[in-house]
Amino acid sequence: MRSNPLRDPRDRRLPRIAGPCSIVMFGVTGDLARKKLIPAIYDLANRGLLPPGFGLVGFARRDWGDGTFATLMREAAQAGARTEWSDTVWEQLAQGIKFVPGQFDDDDAWRNLATTLQELDEQQGTGGNHAFYLSIPPALFPTVISKIDEHGLADQAKGWRRVVVEKPFGHDLESAKELNQLIGNVFEPETVFRIDHYLGKETVQNILALRFANQLFEPVWNSQYVDHVQITMAEDIGIGSRAGYYDAIGAARDVIQNHLLQLLALVAMEEPISFDAAGLRLEKQKVLRSVRLPEDLDRHTARAQYVAGWAGGKPVVGYREEEGIDPGSLTETFAAIRLDIATRRWAGVPFYLRTGKRLGRRVTEVAVVFKKAPHLPFEHHDVTELGNNALVMRIQPDEGVTMRFGAKVPGTTMEIRDVNMDFAYGGSFVEDSPEAYERLILDVLLGDPPLFPQHEEVELSWQILDPVIKHWSRKRTIDTYSAGTWGPQSAFEMLERDGRSWRRP
Amino acid sequence: MRSNPLRDPRDRRLPRIAGPCSIVMFGVTGDLARKKLIPAIYDLANRGLLPPGFGLVGFARRDWGDGTFATLMREAAQAGARTEWSDTVWEQLAQGIKFVPGQFDDDDAWRNLATTLQELDEQQGTGGNHAFYLSIPPALFPTVISKIDEHGLADQAKGWRRVVVEKPFGHDLESAKELNQLIGNVFEPETVFRIDHYLGKETVQNILALRFANQLFEPVWNSQYVDHVQITMAEDIGIGSRAGYYDAIGAARDVIQNHLLQLLALVAMEEPISFDAAGLRLEKQKVLRSVRLPEDLDRHTARAQYVAGWAGGKPVVGYREEEGIDPGSLTETFAAIRLDIATRRWAGVPFYLRTGKRLGRRVTEVAVVFKKAPHLPFEHHDVTELGNNALVMRIQPDEGVTMRFGAKVPGTTMEIRDVNMDFAYGGSFVEDSPEAYERLILDVLLGDPPLFPQHEEVELSWQILDPVIKHWSRKRTIDTYSAGTWGPQSAFEMLERDGRSWRRP
Repeated sequence: MRSNPLRDPRDRRLPRIAGPCSIVMFGVTGDLARKKLIPAIYDLANRGLLPPGFGLVGFARRDWGDGTFATLMREAAQAGARTEWSDTVWEQLAQGIKFVPGQFDDDDAWRNLATTLQELDEQQGTGGNHAFYLSIPPALFPTVISKIDEHGLADQAKGWRRVVVEKPFGHDLESAKELNQLIGNVFEPETVFRIDHYLGKETVQNILALRFANQLFEPVWNSQYVDHVQITMAEDIGIGSRAGYYDAIGAARDVIQNHLLQLLALVAMEEPISFDAAGLRLEKQKVLRSVRLPEDLDRHTARAQYVAGWAGGKPVVGYREEEGIDPGSLTETFAAIRLDIATRRWAGVPFYLRTGKRLGRRVTEVAVVFKKAPHLPFEHHDVTELGNNALVMRIQPDEGVTMRFGAKVPGTTMEIRDVNMDFAYGGSFVEDSPEAYERLILDVLLGDPPLFPQHEEVELSWQILDPVIKHWSRKRTIDTYSAGTWGPQSAFEMLERDGRSWRRP
Repeated sequence: MRSNPLRDPRDRRLPRIAGPCSIVMFGVTGDLARKKLIPAIYDLANRGLLPPGFGLVGFARRDWGDGTFATLMREAAQAGARTEWSDTVWEQLAQGIKFVPGQFDDDDAWRNLATTLQELDEQQGTGGNHAFYLSIPPALFPTVISKIDEHGLADQAKGWRRVVVEKPFGHDLESAKELNQLIGNVFEPETVFRIDHYLGKETVQNILALRFANQLFEPVWNSQYVDHVQITMAEDIGIGSRAGYYDAIGAARDVIQNHLLQLLALVAMEEPISFDAAGLRLEKQKVLRSVRLPEDLDRHTARAQYVAGWAGGKPVVGYREEEGIDPGSLTETFAAIRLDIATRRWAGVPFYLRTGKRLGRRVTEVAVVFKKAPHLPFEHHDVTELGNNALVMRIQPDEGVTMRFGAKVPGTTMEIRDVNMDFAYGGSFVEDSPEAYERLILDVLLGDPPLFPQHEEVELSWQILDPVIKHWSRKRTIDTYSAGTWGPQSAFEMLERDGRSWRRP
């Protein structure tokens, strides 16, 4: 972390504030920029976490001037901001808003960009520190990265230069390696920030706090006490307007390769030496390297497509009827995989990952399901309704932690039944949770990388997933599930065969 | 447990129902009978847990007939019942209500009682099964017990005969032994039911469910993870109308000897072979036998009297100004003791017990306070507000379980602070909790003794407490605390010296 003269390290209540810098945004007219990135930048400014002379440069194929662009950005910020609106804050921010029109392969436009950045350095004091945010389709990466290089914009001698990329980080191991090499030719590893916005979520970071700031959980966080782990990211929505993108990718690549494997790494990793980038990266890599696929993929994975059903009380069409989807598509909208981790801590404890569109409701959670107590000194009929203890980390919505355990049912017998102990993130802190993107953009500007997966993790994740996807792609059919249900029969059978069952979150 | 033909043991939802029997109540005009026992009997009847021909016999020095007595009992039941009022249920119950007037040493009255019981057997079918409930001052025990014997009422040949006694079970080890011998001469140990109403509370029994029906807690329930245990029974009320009784006894005898040492035994005991009387008794005795007093009682105990202060927003007088209290009384209204348990599981883990009148609020809880994690891989300033993990079993009010642990404070730094995870007994079960006395009276009628302390436990508890009380009695002064506060300075210092502090419940 860059030292900040405004911050006394002894005063932990002073927030981390970014030093002089700018962000250059490619793909600023897209959904992500409008709905998430620009509001997050405004919220950071409003919270006083951006430098006074911050620069925001848009680069796109539009015939706009700085003024038009600033107006559009203002509309986006006003529509999406989490914090209160302040004209003063916006006007301060607007001072540094610039627009560079042009094609990504137009050298004139790039020269224009270089000049604009130089002017920002002079007028706004951005000090030669610039982050390039690539909110663009992967196909455009080679052009943009090489132009950044050609025009000397990646030259760290003039200040720090960083690049931010959004998933997908490739679509298999080979393409991920190519992409990493492409970026690696121009940017040093520590200047590349791959955004997995899940890692910016408070509740995801709280997995680490829960495990390593407490005495209570680590002693039972191993194969002696844990029966299995379930990691679920369920969506109730369909594919929306992302038909073209989604049909080429599917659920496993879209969610398991990044979000779910990162969650698995955080839940399963050993205690890091520290919470800096190197410490976390090392432990996450160790977990991912220890992951083993089941031998019989037919028995231990499931994939399916939703067919017509219900969502939010309304009938909805099936995946193949969605606009823009090939009626013969074999792309999965639901994927479930069993993984094992070959370490002393986790041997024999399956990790079940599942994700899907058009499921029963929107929920992301990690459930650590414990074994039954080795002996229950009760009468048999007292414990027939007693399940396994479980610790559930609720990532979204209803962020929090739930512990399921057995308690005595009121009455004159010793009947024991499962109850829940609950911690609600929102109910316990007066502090409002920042959006994931606020945290992540600030980390980029501070050069603080612990929450960003490095290229090794990306490649390890593809290495895990590739054989599964390859196995699936050999099939000429795909299972189905009705929209609004919890997935295909094959997914339920996959756990039943192991003597377990999915949680109904 | 007596087998009940109405109950199929495979159907655990069928409640336990008492067989034919009656209760003879001595001291039926007292507070306890009117406010707790009679309402509990009505509630049991209303829940269908009493036999149809149940008998209730009052024995007292009043010139009442069966009718007057029944009317007074009806008023008491109506005023105190937990369940809905039903004339039908009451009328059924009233059939078996009888009154025997007389002094406890009047043989005619006892002959009258014997005849009444015989009539009940004949008219109501109580089958010779009679429980004698001694809700009377201990001074009257010898008379009543010996008259029961003389008049052949303890003769188990005619049906079962049981005796129920309320605390105090003596006022020191010697008097307890005498009392136990007195009762033991007439009643076999398994027919003596000593009521500690705390043990009838759902939340007390839930301590056993929590520990032994779950996988999560036992692994950390030992000196490797537990720093210390705090057992608190705080009352906000003063001594009320119990001046004479209380001043002769004090807080330690009134609460620590029975309730708090029983709670300690349940929290600290090893897993019993089963939850029957023999299994539980064995483990409780083992704990009590392992309890060690600190060598320096001045440093590790505290006792005090409340002086004038506040209660419920109103000024209240000090203990020595209470009506009926000697202004020079040295009786303690607050007592705190450190105990150690000399077992492999608990060596080095102090158990701090405290109780008092006129404290900040009414609360009984057991707090298991865990050690800090052996290492915290965070920046120092991230964890300055992180305390110890704790599992708090809330006995009353707000019955439930709370787990205190560290969670990430929302924001862009990894700051960690204590939060609570909560389980509320009332919020989680649709079943209404029966009153402790319902459970205990039913257990007496069923002859099911696991929740009743046996004479060994009573004597072991006095053996622990006697040296402390003897030590205190040598002093000519007593500490003080203002009504409405959490006790004397000496109690706070007692924990500070150990590097710990009392919870503010």
